Amino acid sequence: MSGAVLCPRTDGSFAARLALSAAADDGSWISTADFPAWLEGRRRAHHFKVERIPFAGLDGWSFTEDTGNLVHRTGRFFSVEGLSVTVGEGPFRHWEQPIIRQPEVGILGLLAKEFDGVLHFLMQAKMEPGNRNLLQLSPTVQATRSNYTKVHRGAGVKYLEYFTDPVRGRVAFDVLQSEHGSWFYRKTNRNMLVEALDEVPHDDDFCWLTLGQIAELLRRDNVVNMDSRTVIACFPTGGAARGALLPDAAVQSWVTVERSRHDVAADLVPLAGIKGWERDEFALARPDGRFFQVVAVSVEAGNREVTGWSQPLLEPTGPAVAAFLVRRIGGVPHLLVSARAEAGFLDTIELGPTVQCDPANWRGVPPPPFLDTVLAAGPERVLYEALHSEEGGRFLHAEIRYLFVEADETQAPLAPPPGFQWVTPGQLADLAGHAHYVNVQARTLLACLTSGAARLDALA
Amino acid sequence: MSGAVLCPRTDGSFAARLALSAAADDGSWISTADFPAWLEGRRRAHHFKVERIPFAGLDGWSFTEDTGNLVHRTGRFFSVEGLSVTVGEGPFRHWEQPIIRQPEVGILGLLAKEFDGVLHFLMQAKMEPGNRNLLQLSPTVQATRSNYTKVHRGAGVKYLEYFTDPVRGRVAFDVLQSEHGSWFYRKTNRNMLVEALDEVPHDDDFCWLTLGQIAELLRRDNVVNMDSRTVIACFPTGGAARGALLPDAAVQSWVTVERSRHDVAADLVPLAGIKGWERDEFALARPDGRFFQVVAVSVEAGNREVTGWSQPLLEPTGPAVAAFLVRRIGGVPHLLVSARAEAGFLDTIELGPTVQCDPANWRGVPPPPFLDTVLAAGPERVLYEALHSEEGGRFLHAEIRYLFVEADETQAPLAPPPGFQWVTPGQLADLAGHAHYVNVQARTLLACLTSGAARLDALA
Repeated sequence: MSGAVLCPRTDGSFAARLALSAAADDGSWISTADFPAWLEGRRRAHHFKVERIPFAGLDGWSFTEDTGNLVHRTGRFFSVEGLSVTVGEGPFRHWEQPIIRQPEVGILGLLAKEFDGVLHFLMQAKMEPGNRNLLQLSPTVQATRSNYTKVHRGAGVKYLEYFTDPVRGRVAFDVLQSEHGSWFYRKTNRNMLVEALDEVPHDDDFCWLTLGQIAELLRRDNVVNMDSRTVIACFPTGGAARGALLPDAAVQSWVTVERSRHDVAADLVPLAGIKGWERDEFALARPDGRFFQVVAVSVEAGNREVTGWSQPLLEPTGPAVAAFLVRRIGGVPHLLVSARAEAGFLDTIELGPTVQCDPANWRGVPPPPFLDTVLAAGPERVLYEALHSEEGGRFLHAEIRYLFVEADETQAPLAPPPGFQWVTPGQLADLAGHAHYVNVQARTLLACLTSGAARLDALA
Repeated sequence: MSGAVLCPRTDGSFAARLALSAAADDGSWISTADFPAWLEGRRRAHHFKVERIPFAGLDGWSFTEDTGNLVHRTGRFFSVEGLSVTVGEGPFRHWEQPIIRQPEVGILGLLAKEFDGVLHFLMQAKMEPGNRNLLQLSPTVQATRSNYTKVHRGAGVKYLEYFTDPVRGRVAFDVLQSEHGSWFYRKTNRNMLVEALDEVPHDDDFCWLTLGQIAELLRRDNVVNMDSRTVIACFPTGGAARGALLPDAAVQSWVTVERSRHDVAADLVPLAGIKGWERDEFALARPDGRFFQVVAVSVEAGNREVTGWSQPLLEPTGPAVAAFLVRRIGGVPHLLVSARAEAGFLDTIELGPTVQCDPANWRGVPPPPFLDTVLAAGPERVLYEALHSEEGGRFLHAEIRYLFVEADETQAPLAPPPGFQWVTPGQLADLAGHAHYVNVQARTLLACLTSGAARLDALA
């Protein structure tokens, strides 16, 4: 028998400490009122410039002779390849498309520390070429494996050691999460929260914010980047114990049934010659202009690991819409989740918002369920609305209008159509504690609830 | 606001009801002492015969002209294809092998009902051609999608409606679980437990047993089949709240790191011409006799959905060994789990037993960690030992010797080598509540703990 000291399996106090931080509208490091000036200061401190260039102007990137895939000469970073998709239902049953392949698992890491008894989070003012406004708030560390193995020979990633060397802090969570299944082939990143145990060195591009301050910034357009949002979505908030329309086992069973019943065949194919796409000097696109195009940009930056580079980006149409219909059921707010079969998912389906699409792509075909209900909602039904950018390192101006929209029985019945189910925010948050359950758009909306940016108290 | 009645998210009493059933050494339907005679009666009631035949004698199965894959003429059931595998570590870095591909998700369903206040489980005396003794105890329903969509035009699967039509019972769990990653390409089945709400019709090939009775049968060789074991492993036993060496977040983080750090490239390739394998009239095998061979059998059966058929089976060397090293740490029993990168897994690694291999396959290469410790254990260290068959519908005489072996600090240190970690049975059981965490061999061992077949109380 060993005399080793045991730990409690879960840290029961952490949810309460997160709630305290969410209630803190102002922080010890910077006041929320001063934040815009700080961010503007970081913008002025560096030189950023992004320009569209022809594919021929890319440095280190080229279309290979055999497959036509768009790859980097090192074979690292990512590649743009072809995907041939066949699904069993919906208006689009078979198609081919470009897709980003990036098999390495990166780290999205947020560092936490208590100041004056309140948890603060170390956010970075980070330029990504595809971001609206270029500079947004990223988590402390946003590192591909290429980043930290130094493939691009730049400077090291600041604070990375807190996430790779466990003795620097206490890991609150560390969970794989998928990213956009329509644009990435089976991409996952580690989403991590680490509480620093000692003094953390200062850096000018970083600031400590409470969860309440982050919530306020999440109410503004294009300030908090996608990587921050997905990490916050995983915060262990403890969930509500007040019951739900369906017990957890029934939710799990519904996920299992949805996962089993969808047939999705998605095979990587050579990018050259995929049907329905045409390439000119500047873009690989569909003649009908739908969905997205692949383009190239050159980047000049003063505070990135390297000071200049060029790269491909995926530029979607848009802005798209991602919305949860919400209802108070038996006194408890519920979200209407959808089981989404996106071609790039590892495991068939993940749970997404009620509605997730660019309405412009659905001209001439029957719209997805509930889209009209979301688009027609008057302001009295809109509990939250903001425009956020998706991953600015891979997507150009990929903006989504995120909403929570109140619905009633006529708009969103308690017995929803196939592929939809009512869950509480606590049930969704618990599923986000494991990989492959909650898609990245639903995680942005979940982060709005977790932080308090969106509040469901006002529900009738 | 809807007045719908909410459910508690989890049924707190179910774990206690399972514990009561596990404590019941005898049942209301049949006494454990009479069970062997009942099973023998079922054996006598039916005619079963399995014979090896040449591939040319297979009815409906053939090697296709283009790929050489072994397929059924309907394109259903399963196929034997080639897999080309490259991994980043270990003595075997690259190989090719046959693999079973069965993309449809089946149902392994166990029906529960209370008799005299104690939960009983409806077990089936079921013949599978690859089983030792042919007849073993399966769960109530064991159905591929081909079964229940009637591809083979046989009789319907008994009791299937309890698992496909939720109003017949209450779903206690319904979770996808992987099967053998070295023999199946990304195979998953739904593992389900349903509690019947009304009278359940009787059938001669089925019997109701308490969990305590099943535990006693799990102590015997080759009685409880793999499908039963994997379902029992998912029983929500509630776990122990007494703490663990690592908090749950640290276990999750370790899984995430292991999942991220392994590079496994596994691509389906034509079966014809895979390197290292040779096919004669009766077998597709390696000249060195290692790992497994693919063979063909003809089957005559009186109580299956169809009365006769022929099919390929995968016949491994063996028996193999699957063992957990166990220690009492801080007063609480812990299991040493390994992160296993099996080529057929969907998501890189799953948690397996400390040791899982056929020692005969490791002649001439350094043995896997802890194999010698398991093989050298005297009887005073062996807390559980039994021989069980793996899936008899796909594997021929695939037997594994399952063990729990007590270890000490010199044999299994608290700081284990990379790829190993200490978890409590409760932590492992909670992970088994989600897909892709716990492999099928570890689930057999977990079922032994859940049922009480193996007891860790005796640990020093």
